[in-house]
Amino acid sequence: MTNLRIASFASIIWTCMIFNASAGSLSDQDTARILDLKETALSSNLAYEIDESLTTEVGARRVGTAGDKRAVEWAVAKMKQRGFDRVWTEEVIHHAWIRGTAEARIISPYPQKMVAIALGGSVGTPAGGLTAEVVEFADLAALEAAAPDSLKGRIAYVSYRMERKIDGAGYGPAVKTRSAGPSIAAAKGAIALIMRSVGTDNNRIGHTGGLQYNDDIVKIPAAALSNPDADLLSNTIRRGKPVKVFLKLTAMRQDDIAVTTANVIGEISGSTNPDEYVVMGAHLDSWDVGTGAVDDGIGVSITLAAAHHIAALPTRPKRSIRVILFAAEEVGLVGARQYVERHKDDMASHVIGAEWDFGTGRIYEMTPGVGPSALNSIRELAELLAPLGVSLSPKNDARGQSDMSALGKTGMPAVNFEPDGLKYFDYHHTENDTLDKVDAEALKQNTAVYTIFSYFAAQSGIDFRK
Amino acid sequence: MTNLRIASFASIIWTCMIFNASAGSLSDQDTARILDLKETALSSNLAYEIDESLTTEVGARRVGTAGDKRAVEWAVAKMKQRGFDRVWTEEVIHHAWIRGTAEARIISPYPQKMVAIALGGSVGTPAGGLTAEVVEFADLAALEAAAPDSLKGRIAYVSYRMERKIDGAGYGPAVKTRSAGPSIAAAKGAIALIMRSVGTDNNRIGHTGGLQYNDDIVKIPAAALSNPDADLLSNTIRRGKPVKVFLKLTAMRQDDIAVTTANVIGEISGSTNPDEYVVMGAHLDSWDVGTGAVDDGIGVSITLAAAHHIAALPTRPKRSIRVILFAAEEVGLVGARQYVERHKDDMASHVIGAEWDFGTGRIYEMTPGVGPSALNSIRELAELLAPLGVSLSPKNDARGQSDMSALGKTGMPAVNFEPDGLKYFDYHHTENDTLDKVDAEALKQNTAVYTIFSYFAAQSGIDFRK
Repeated sequence: MTNLRIASFASIIWTCMIFNASAGSLSDQDTARILDLKETALSSNLAYEIDESLTTEVGARRVGTAGDKRAVEWAVAKMKQRGFDRVWTEEVIHHAWIRGTAEARIISPYPQKMVAIALGGSVGTPAGGLTAEVVEFADLAALEAAAPDSLKGRIAYVSYRMERKIDGAGYGPAVKTRSAGPSIAAAKGAIALIMRSVGTDNNRIGHTGGLQYNDDIVKIPAAALSNPDADLLSNTIRRGKPVKVFLKLTAMRQDDIAVTTANVIGEISGSTNPDEYVVMGAHLDSWDVGTGAVDDGIGVSITLAAAHHIAALPTRPKRSIRVILFAAEEVGLVGARQYVERHKDDMASHVIGAEWDFGTGRIYEMTPGVGPSALNSIRELAELLAPLGVSLSPKNDARGQSDMSALGKTGMPAVNFEPDGLKYFDYHHTENDTLDKVDAEALKQNTAVYTIFSYFAAQSGIDFRK
Repeated sequence: MTNLRIASFASIIWTCMIFNASAGSLSDQDTARILDLKETALSSNLAYEIDESLTTEVGARRVGTAGDKRAVEWAVAKMKQRGFDRVWTEEVIHHAWIRGTAEARIISPYPQKMVAIALGGSVGTPAGGLTAEVVEFADLAALEAAAPDSLKGRIAYVSYRMERKIDGAGYGPAVKTRSAGPSIAAAKGAIALIMRSVGTDNNRIGHTGGLQYNDDIVKIPAAALSNPDADLLSNTIRRGKPVKVFLKLTAMRQDDIAVTTANVIGEISGSTNPDEYVVMGAHLDSWDVGTGAVDDGIGVSITLAAAHHIAALPTRPKRSIRVILFAAEEVGLVGARQYVERHKDDMASHVIGAEWDFGTGRIYEMTPGVGPSALNSIRELAELLAPLGVSLSPKNDARGQSDMSALGKTGMPAVNFEPDGLKYFDYHHTENDTLDKVDAEALKQNTAVYTIFSYFAAQSGIDFRK
């Protein structure tokens, strides 16, 4: 997921809620079917098998790479194999970027190599690298407070460490250095930015992720150090002698070179309202360093598996269920934005959406973002999910996570499912995002939740906007 | 530590033990002093500070590298600073080896990069790398059972995974592939060996460590895959299609290029028996990929800190306490063997020895290897250590761990201290061996144990050989 996921949440408390448990949205038969679907999902290993297939047969799939193209072919084939009624692609256009290699070393006073990774979208250093004195800042605010020109000819280093929190709330305060830090440092005269990785692990593996240059300011190269290397650099600086660092990035921006990829869309066609879509979203692209098993192989896998379980029923639910595997999420929700642009006359047919793009844990909470009249139905859904350990948030402000936030901005109702994210940022945007990090049992619970949600929303006919 | 640590233990049970608690080896004053030393060690952060200094100011220090030379200078200075009465170096000679770079990729059927690391001492591949079909073996025995010439032109791949055990007992069955696998594979016609890393972690970081070529068989390049990459390769092979792998190692053996390094020795001189030595050992060299904070920065740090606490007392114990920081342990106990050769006429003066080369955990057991008459005194020592959570093994077969095993072979009595090793092989011989892996609280307990042991052995005057 990108940093766009961490939106600010207005706190709309359900003070006006009136529950009416007797006005059920589902027939007894529907409810029985949902309980069957739940058992199917909980006993099936399908989502894990799909993730194993994606990560073994495709692997890394950054937008514009050969892996990205293979992923699109893989997704189309997998949807057809898994019983979707309609499968198609919609072209998405972005631009190229070359990661190249990253080298970082402390030159003096104590020569040490460091593990670093270029931030996504970074420019390269001069071909021979650069060597300069490092100035440490505790966080982005300290960098922002530096005097103009005080970093002239120097490397800015932000050592802020992300906090581990179950809901991923440590990400926002950390990721702003990755997004905005390079241009802020450049504005003070810095020739490069290095930062502690946005991650909660202690592995000698850097975390990449997109930066956002301010186009009015010179673009400087930017890289993230692994957490142990950030410790090392800070411990070295703490000794009080000038510290010189060598940095060489062979990264290259190629903003004028277009690359094409695609959103891959599969539909279980509704039996009575086929032109109304319950949407499950995930992103098909990944960063180029791991195999994207977690980010967002898990989302791809649970949405495909959930739709498959419903497709395997003898009858279709009333509305269509649309799984959208978005392209180019990691570089700024590019596929989702292009989807909304292409479907702008059709967004009212998207009755509700849920994304999965946050990892490895069991879902513990559901937050709706629906019209006030639909809250009773959400409560019914919550009662179906409660035995899976999912509680209902008192808030009603969900606007869609990650890609789905682009659809949510058009007014589409949404549900956010919140998983235990304690481990997520150990692997996020690293080489370490591999299949072994996927919890097969949590995946079953996740799949059961998405299966129930999508069947409920498709079969009940509720207008979630009202 | 190398694989030599895992020696087979004869099981000599204390069936003949006669305890005589009244025949104490220490005066009441000595006992009081030991209790004071324990409190000093438990409340001091010195060992951690020493490890922070070594890993920040020196870092990686593989034999023959610039880091190794800096480490020798660092150790001499640190011993002088920490109150040792005598500090000296003894030259150790080994030969060079160049690690170079490692590249591994699955070429077909599904192109994927893999994280690999050359085994220590490996030859390189041809300059352009090599590409060949891979044949998987579940373990070394399966490789040994392969028909002659069955691997001709192929890459042998051993996928055996090390088991996690508190005493490190999973290491022996795993490490034999690293030691002997390359020559066994070569004898079957293989052009390279790749293996799952000898390690218990799931990080995308390979574990290096020394191989041992059979000089009668052609030397083939050998590398270890990270555990997630070994999973990936096995999952790919499981699909039943031929799997081709590209491997490029720019490693280079330089057996005819001598490098010099040194054992660094520091002594707290005995007050009445200065020519009798109680020995604490650790190794100063490390592999070249991490900063060696754990292997064996911890050993260096706790032996220096323990000796410092004793040096800080107003009077010296009766015997000398000798801390030996051995050179070139990782390449086969080279420094320890050269120490024994140099001191062969003097080994009878080494009254007892203990090594530390096994990591990050709290010590839970002590195993002596002493003469039968000395067992009563060992029981006294055990009573002093029991409040620290250290139990006494019923065995009496310790011959010294790691470097100390070379001294133990001469007949020197030894004590082995066994720490909780559950996490040790997550970091062992990897880039991930960094300061953050060091448990500062466990280090205090470790230091207290070594302080008590060495003071007890130096002050009590016991003949541990009898």
